Amino acid sequence: MTIAAPTPTTDATCCTPVMGGALSADEAERIARTFKALGDATRIRLLSLIAASAGGEACICDLTEPVGLSQPTVSHHMKQLVDAGLAEREQRGRWAYFRVVDGALDRAAQALRP
Amino acid sequence: MTIAAPTPTTDATCCTPVMGGALSADEAERIARTFKALGDATRIRLLSLIAASAGGEACICDLTEPVGLSQPTVSHHMKQLVDAGLAEREQRGRWAYFRVVDGALDRAAQALRP
Repeated sequence: MTIAAPTPTTDATCCTPVMGGALSADEAERIARTFKALGDATRIRLLSLIAASAGGEACICDLTEPVGLSQPTVSHHMKQLVDAGLAEREQRGRWAYFRVVDGALDRAAQALRP
Repeated sequence: MTIAAPTPTTDATCCTPVMGGALSADEAERIARTFKALGDATRIRLLSLIAASAGGEACICDLTEPVGLSQPTVSHHMKQLVDAGLAEREQRGRWAYFRVVDGALDRAAQALRP
């Protein structure tokens, strides 16, 4: 049983070798950061609230009450989602507005397909 | 600002009200658990190795070397992925074999769409 690209090994010890097409450590680290941002129920609720909002965007002023948290706490969660590339932020006067970044989650999920 | 989900509010004080269609706290918790299991670079690499393997399955004996970890450590990571519903395990004689559960990640991602 031989293994394909990118680096063939020659000393597989048993069974079916695991092979190319798999992610590098760096790629895995980057993708894990995206999922880590989603590994929190509050951030999932925030994203789902934004996605379900009219026009696909929400003011931070409307996000605090549904999740029952203070604005600084919601801002902190939103910053993690923005840093992970899952949401984008736009300041309009006093308020920050957020949108879900189309396809960001799909791109991370895609990396786990053969 | 009273937010009711799934009932639209009538007394929004500013901006665009955030409303129904968003996830409940329980649903968000369940989905966050799935993503949390993916928030680790080793587990991402393990899933990608399995997805990229011939026949879409991999023996644990072939997963240890690519990630450079001991079999007990890999088993522990795989258990977390199985518990999160992202992988399934089948014992065949001495070895455990793993497959990625089709659609598990997509179902979690779907919950974040409007």
